[in-house]
Amino acid sequence: MMRGCKYGTHRVIEPKGVLPQAAQKISNDMKIYDNEMLIDIQALNIDSASFTQIKEVCNKDKEKMKAMILEIIGKRGKMQNPVTGSGGMLIGTIKEMGSDLKDRDLKVGDKIASLVSLTLTPLKIEEILDIKMDIDRVEVKGTAILFESGIYAKLPNDMEETLALAALDVAGAPAQTRKLVKKDQTVLVLGANGKSGLLCCYEARKQVGENGKVIGMVRSESKREFLEETGFCHDIILADATNPTKVLEEVMKVTGGKEIDVAINCVNIPNTEMSTILPVREEGIVYFFSMATSFTKAALGAEGIGKDVNMIIGNGYSKNHADITLEDVRESKIIRDIFEKMYLN
Amino acid sequence: MMRGCKYGTHRVIEPKGVLPQAAQKISNDMKIYDNEMLIDIQALNIDSASFTQIKEVCNKDKEKMKAMILEIIGKRGKMQNPVTGSGGMLIGTIKEMGSDLKDRDLKVGDKIASLVSLTLTPLKIEEILDIKMDIDRVEVKGTAILFESGIYAKLPNDMEETLALAALDVAGAPAQTRKLVKKDQTVLVLGANGKSGLLCCYEARKQVGENGKVIGMVRSESKREFLEETGFCHDIILADATNPTKVLEEVMKVTGGKEIDVAINCVNIPNTEMSTILPVREEGIVYFFSMATSFTKAALGAEGIGKDVNMIIGNGYSKNHADITLEDVRESKIIRDIFEKMYLN
Ligand SMILES: NC(=O)c1ccc[n+]([C@@H]2O[C@H](COP(=O)([O-])OP(=O)(O)OC[C@H]3O[C@@H](n4cnc5c(N)ncnc54)[C@H](OP(=O)(O)O)[C@@H]3O)[C@@H](O)[C@H]2O)c1
Ligand SMILES: NC(=O)c1ccc[n+]([C@@H]2O[C@H](COP(=O)([O-])OP(=O)(O)OC[C@H]3O[C@@H](n4cnc5c(N)ncnc54)[C@H](OP(=O)(O)O)[C@@H]3O)[C@@H](O)[C@H]2O)c1
Repeated sequence: MMRGCKYGTHRVIEPKGVLPQAAQKISNDMKIYDNEMLIDIQALNIDSASFTQIKEVCNKDKEKMKAMILEIIGKRGKMQNPVTGSGGMLIGTIKEMGSDLKDRDLKVGDKIASLVSLTLTPLKIEEILDIKMDIDRVEVKGTAILFESGIYAKLPNDMEETLALAALDVAGAPAQTRKLVKKDQTVLVLGANGKSGLLCCYEARKQVGENGKVIGMVRSESKREFLEETGFCHDIILADATNPTKVLEEVMKVTGGKEIDVAINCVNIPNTEMSTILPVREEGIVYFFSMATSFTKAALGAEGIGKDVNMIIGNGYSKNHADITLEDVRESKIIRDIFEKMYLN
Repeated sequence: MMRGCKYGTHRVIEPKGVLPQAAQKISNDMKIYDNEMLIDIQALNIDSASFTQIKEVCNKDKEKMKAMILEIIGKRGKMQNPVTGSGGMLIGTIKEMGSDLKDRDLKVGDKIASLVSLTLTPLKIEEILDIKMDIDRVEVKGTAILFESGIYAKLPNDMEETLALAALDVAGAPAQTRKLVKKDQTVLVLGANGKSGLLCCYEARKQVGENGKVIGMVRSESKREFLEETGFCHDIILADATNPTKVLEEVMKVTGGKEIDVAINCVNIPNTEMSTILPVREEGIVYFFSMATSFTKAALGAEGIGKDVNMIIGNGYSKNHADITLEDVRESKIIRDIFEKMYLN
């Protein structure tokens, strides 16, 4: 038998030297190495940007979409949309565990969601059974490989699969919030009524304790009411995340003019860097979870206002992020109800 | 008299609500507010990307370049190249201090370099005296305004101005290195022979102490020799920063297979995120100083390999960064000699 690279580089076909995610083509030979596992795929959850692109190019024709998806996977050995560059995740059951992974708390037959992107996951699809157009989901017959470093979550028995998947999609955010936020701090969450935003408000509230303060930012009166009902925030402010002076002004109103300790950006649009940086105190933390964040706008923006803040790139993974997130969903009936209403079909 | 906004928003003409850097047009009325200062400009050091673009469009014709620069400043009230989006910095002498800034260790006549970008600095140019084509410098007669939050450095008397400017340009990197690196740690610097890289190696060496290790990464034999002569690094490895598996392999060779504590990216090209993340241990620090860093490549890349590392966006500003950097140049004859050779004309 054979041990592959922990990160799967042994499967990179071209170009050499890069990791599977950056590769044009990887090997989808389904004979596993000792430190890989084989998964019987049930469905691919295609990333929303990628799914939309495919849908548009194919004029929403399911058969054309099937052909296009099969072609991408056939060419690249993985489901990475060549236009958007993005992937998605998969759910399936363990079919085979490499001998080196025998100690894991996982056995053949267990149902898991892969939490690494499809952009680096070797896939072989026999047949596409159906495409669920409204939830970006592709039901297939096929197999996938997870590398030794590949993260995953066992799907829980006590909640619906789509509910768990919706929460796991943003698992990095509440887990990082738990790590970053300390007792008695004042925390601002931008995009507080969104999926990751709600989880962050909930976690921040737990962390700051009795004397801390969680400020949720939303952009409309209806969202303010919605957020108010959760009870997660001590204060709610209303502002457009692309308007830093307004955000600062509103924050100052509820803090009595004091700068905050931590700002968490959970917004899904560009040009919100300054709104996140501006209200934070010297040596405070600015945590960008939003994928629309621009590195240079953040780096030059903080310099431009002479602010020595610690700016963190929201890593999609953080230790135990899946457990932390599912725990939050279990713990809070409010989150569970909202997520069920929003993400269950 | 009047107090303006600390960040200069009172001078934003359009669009409203943004900070001066993001504005299309700011007011360059040279009557200062109480919390501003007026500077007699001696020269603008145009950002290299911007200067190159202007030079090309104008076919290296100095008069055309002068006209183009004046047009940009005339239209926008600041020197922000509309194509590259970038600015530069300026040097000049204090002409007037707003009454609110009287406590600062600064007086009329002092010579300073602005350390905030020209992309947010109100400028009024009477005349362009000369353009120094080889050092991207524009000598002018004119004035500029620095906001209350605007950072600057008094130019030292004990070194040449161009030397100080070269060092100050990357001042954020050594200052952050001093903050991030701890005793006994193992630190990797990518792009170790470059301007910021050298300063980071030097600072890291001071921080790690007797039992720590600084690993410098370069990409050619001649650069290895050059770096070796400085004596700043315990080990030097040779690799292309766009080849993460090679970087990992070389690091592992010199650490005996142990992952490192901190990686500092001082490279000036894209696609080096994974090379920086891969060698770092769980919960280690990945510090991206390079402006070519992609936020999404870092965030998704770390997730893809299931690595819980703290990824930091290199803030151009860090407390006392100018002092720390000039102190390094004074302290180390090696750095000073190299910088004099490289950046003095
Ligand atoms: N770093 C990572 O690893 C990672 C992983 C997954 C996702 N993400 C990113 O995280 C972000 C959030 O994801 P999500 O699932 O939580 O999104 P979501 O549920 O769609 O939430 C987005 C939030 O942003 C708000 N928003 C949008 N424009 C705004 C504006 N101009 N002013 C104020 N608020 C505004 C929305 O408000 P409305 O409700 O009023 O529209 C909503 O609250 C996305 O950018 C996503 O790409 C990152
Ligand atoms: N975050 C901030 O606020 C801030 C402020 C200023 C500058 N910066 C950024 O910091 C970066 C470095 O600036 P600098 O002035 O130190 O630049 P520099 O002196 O030009 O150094 C760049 C270094 O990268 C190395 N390099 C380039 N391509 C490489 C490759 N493929 N493999 C290995 N090494 C490679 C160069 O090696 P060779 O000598 O062999 O070419 C050199 O050592 C730039 O991206 C700049 O934009 C950031």
